[in-house]
Amino acid sequence: MLKRDIILKQLARTNKKNFENYVVTGIWHKLNSLDYKMVTQQYIYRKDRGYAKTDLYFPQLELHVEVDEAHHKANVVDDKLREMDIVNATSHRMLRIDCSEGIERINEQIDEAVAAIQRMRTDLGDAFIPWDPEREISTQTYIDKGEIRLDDDVAFKRIVDAVNCFGFRHRGFQQAGINHLYQPNTRIWFPKLYLNGDWDNRMTEDERTIYEKPVDPGEVAAHAKEVFESGIHTRIVFARVIDSLGMVMYRFKGEFELNIEASKKKGCLVWERTKTAVKTYQPESR
Amino acid sequence: MLKRDIILKQLARTNKKNFENYVVTGIWHKLNSLDYKMVTQQYIYRKDRGYAKTDLYFPQLELHVEVDEAHHKANVVDDKLREMDIVNATSHRMLRIDCSEGIERINEQIDEAVAAIQRMRTDLGDAFIPWDPEREISTQTYIDKGEIRLDDDVAFKRIVDAVNCFGFRHRGFQQAGINHLYQPNTRIWFPKLYLNGDWDNRMTEDERTIYEKPVDPGEVAAHAKEVFESGIHTRIVFARVIDSLGMVMYRFKGEFELNIEASKKKGCLVWERTKTAVKTYQPESR
Repeated sequence: MLKRDIILKQLARTNKKNFENYVVTGIWHKLNSLDYKMVTQQYIYRKDRGYAKTDLYFPQLELHVEVDEAHHKANVVDDKLREMDIVNATSHRMLRIDCSEGIERINEQIDEAVAAIQRMRTDLGDAFIPWDPEREISTQTYIDKGEIRLDDDVAFKRIVDAVNCFGFRHRGFQQAGINHLYQPNTRIWFPKLYLNGDWDNRMTEDERTIYEKPVDPGEVAAHAKEVFESGIHTRIVFARVIDSLGMVMYRFKGEFELNIEASKKKGCLVWERTKTAVKTYQPESR
Repeated sequence: MLKRDIILKQLARTNKKNFENYVVTGIWHKLNSLDYKMVTQQYIYRKDRGYAKTDLYFPQLELHVEVDEAHHKANVVDDKLREMDIVNATSHRMLRIDCSEGIERINEQIDEAVAAIQRMRTDLGDAFIPWDPEREISTQTYIDKGEIRLDDDVAFKRIVDAVNCFGFRHRGFQQAGINHLYQPNTRIWFPKLYLNGDWDNRMTEDERTIYEKPVDPGEVAAHAKEVFESGIHTRIVFARVIDSLGMVMYRFKGEFELNIEASKKKGCLVWERTKTAVKTYQPESR
């Protein structure tokens, strides 16, 4: 039932957008395979071109499909983006479907897109991993792999699913961080990377730097001092994001190191990405 | 553009109904042919089973598809029906798609429905007329045919399109009736067959009898007398109906004769269907 419900929810997002619904359902039905993961209305970032939302995204192929309708599409407002799960699409492929002509031409373009998708899958060979939503989000998958890699697009539904990839065997876990069991001076961190409550956190567009500070200016120095003195200057980061279905996820963003010099200069903590993959651990036996 | 816009509008009616949208778009895209006319949410009447609305209807095949979702479907309320274009589906075929199982099983049923539709088309042979919306509603089509037949499901978009099938060459025509040019004592009539304004008209469910009377009881006798004395006791009927896209249409219902005996007995005009086909005429030359 999981695949059925995910697919139906993804397609439901094309409601009220008639051309988008026609093209997206056309590609899906003519592709006629449950091996493909599809995401509708994925937020993306492209270097030099900024933020956008694409109508259809196949993560396994890094392929987007845009449905060009007659009417103007609203630009994505930055404010809405801060919580969203954004894919860096700088190197992704884009297919455009022009809906300004007759139905025959739209159908032809759908068939062309389906053929292109099937070719890309063939070209990937064994590197194409059929869609398995159960496996995708499971802690055990990443323990078995031995690592979590940035280019595997890893996102967990719950903090506890991420935490337990590092040797813990928690049943529930809701805190924003926990110290690593095996790697010294390292914290596993689940931040909101935008202004929220008492915190004003930011991530740069290239996702290589995180800025962290309390909202209250009176707290900034004390917070910096506390982290400097803790000696815990490495963070494995799973950022809280909201996916295209409105579900909260914790997406792996890499391992970051505190740059003390830069932090002092900038007046907030500056974390810089140093690793794009981290080791996972079997549950500790106690 | 006509087919594109009709198809998109038909599919838009499945918005917000996720399973219906999935199944209807699946059948449409996998059928992959613009020869089929499809109607979503068609009102139907079935003898002994009453009124209903089906999710997908192929008029050329007299085939309906019903998408069975988990949740309860509201019954069709009679009150909403009186203006609608209702198809008599007593002898039609129904296919049901069960959406309670996984996506694999839903996809299989879509494939089975597509195969059944293609078989029905093959079985019809030359009796299957590919969908042509331009031709379907054109006056010239029916002048060329020489007749308008009930079983051709004829509906015009405007009164003038129907009127001009009988030798007239009107540019515009908005009245509810006009006397026939060639057939004596015959009127071409465009009634609303439900309570409306000053008129309380009804058609029986089997569509063989029409009851006509003014709403005002004081007018009934005078109206009957006037029609009796006019001698115009034959009516070619195009009823005003609203199709599934909310468009007004004038649907051919046959030729009716006034039954004077029955009218006197019932206290309203009683019109009985005597012909299911009427002759058409080239435009008069003046």
